[in-house]
Amino acid sequence: MNQTTAIQRKTAQLPAAEIKGITEQQYEDLLWMMVEEALSCSAHDIDHVRRVYKLALQIAGNYPEVNYEVLIPAVLLHDIGRREEDLDLTGRTDHAIVGAAKARAILEHMEIREDVICEIQKAIVTHRYRSGQGPASLEAAILYDADKLDAIGAVGIARTFMMAGQEGARLYRKVDLDTYTAENLTENGRIQNQEDHAPNVEYMVKLKYIPDRLITEAGRALARERASLMKDFFDALDREMGE
Amino acid sequence: MNQTTAIQRKTAQLPAAEIKGITEQQYEDLLWMMVEEALSCSAHDIDHVRRVYKLALQIAGNYPEVNYEVLIPAVLLHDIGRREEDLDLTGRTDHAIVGAAKARAILEHMEIREDVICEIQKAIVTHRYRSGQGPASLEAAILYDADKLDAIGAVGIARTFMMAGQEGARLYRKVDLDTYTAENLTENGRIQNQEDHAPNVEYMVKLKYIPDRLITEAGRALARERASLMKDFFDALDREMGE
Repeated sequence: MNQTTAIQRKTAQLPAAEIKGITEQQYEDLLWMMVEEALSCSAHDIDHVRRVYKLALQIAGNYPEVNYEVLIPAVLLHDIGRREEDLDLTGRTDHAIVGAAKARAILEHMEIREDVICEIQKAIVTHRYRSGQGPASLEAAILYDADKLDAIGAVGIARTFMMAGQEGARLYRKVDLDTYTAENLTENGRIQNQEDHAPNVEYMVKLKYIPDRLITEAGRALARERASLMKDFFDALDREMGE
Repeated sequence: MNQTTAIQRKTAQLPAAEIKGITEQQYEDLLWMMVEEALSCSAHDIDHVRRVYKLALQIAGNYPEVNYEVLIPAVLLHDIGRREEDLDLTGRTDHAIVGAAKARAILEHMEIREDVICEIQKAIVTHRYRSGQGPASLEAAILYDADKLDAIGAVGIARTFMMAGQEGARLYRKVDLDTYTAENLTENGRIQNQEDHAPNVEYMVKLKYIPDRLITEAGRALARERASLMKDFFDALDREMGE
């Protein structure tokens, strides 16, 4: 936690003056603590937030006009609605919407300015690519790109197989993609039956399309390298499986 | 099952005449059934046996002198002692030794010739790289190499992360390798505390050394390609994690 805060302090400035009674350092530490508390599932754990945080600052470094007062809380709080979504087996809960509401409660309690809270909420709501609305500000676009980057590349491969291990899914499935898409994907891209799923299928129906969806030029540059690594990996996996 | 048996029937010949009262096809089907029954853990499940089977036949294709009467049962039965090892929390049970004993019981029941059973047992005992004894026949060397090949490359990466997911391990750990080796590895290479482990550590202490341990020239050629993919992957993971 101290290490990450140190990185942030070097690269970003949070307006301590906005927060009544606590320092900038205390504000960010408080946010980190609340995030750690709120996260449970291993694919979206605190390590995911740390990686997204680093990526967001890396992308933001290319844009001098970034408002860190919006970006940093948005990044830290973007997944705090995850647990509610995971626990809702009907699939109707959207963690981006729940997360934005939970973020507002936290930020109001900290007496953050209303216009800043609104911008943070917008970034959180639109960080999810299945949401109808796309990111409409630079800060929202950076959060969106950083979150997507953590789902691809070597980290993306690692997370996909770890989830497969947790869910008892198979390592590999040979599927007919058209049949699979018709039978096992809902309109908003949810997988209906996890038992018919596998990481190589996840790559074919989802991961390989993520790089094209990125918004910022800096994010897209990082995505190109990660896309190429994923292609090499899943091509090799196909060869090794004899497919 | 039918598909795999078809592959085998094209490339190998089991001496049906040796098995009293059942055909060659029935013999292999019976072995597959018993293996499926005996395997539980997902990293060494029936899919692992299928992949090792394919790899063993691929390697064997380079050696006209291979005795398939020994190789095929050895490959099919090589992990049937896994469950006993997994359930023994003292770490003293060696699945290669247990597997060889279980294989003898099965093969005797099928009235397989004593000298053939002995060769199959030797291959099973020595397939494990931590065993003191190395593989002493061509068939034992092929089983050893095929089993090790399935632990590296894209499949090896996939299996490592799936296990990490199952065990609730972390995706990545930054460790000092000397300290880690001194504190967390026993003499025979066992990991003492899974909580201090992670796939990138597994690569550094184990996976990267596997390609050098292969025995057959054909196996080593396959290992070189897989080694290079693993290096690219874990180098990329280090970069993405900012290490």
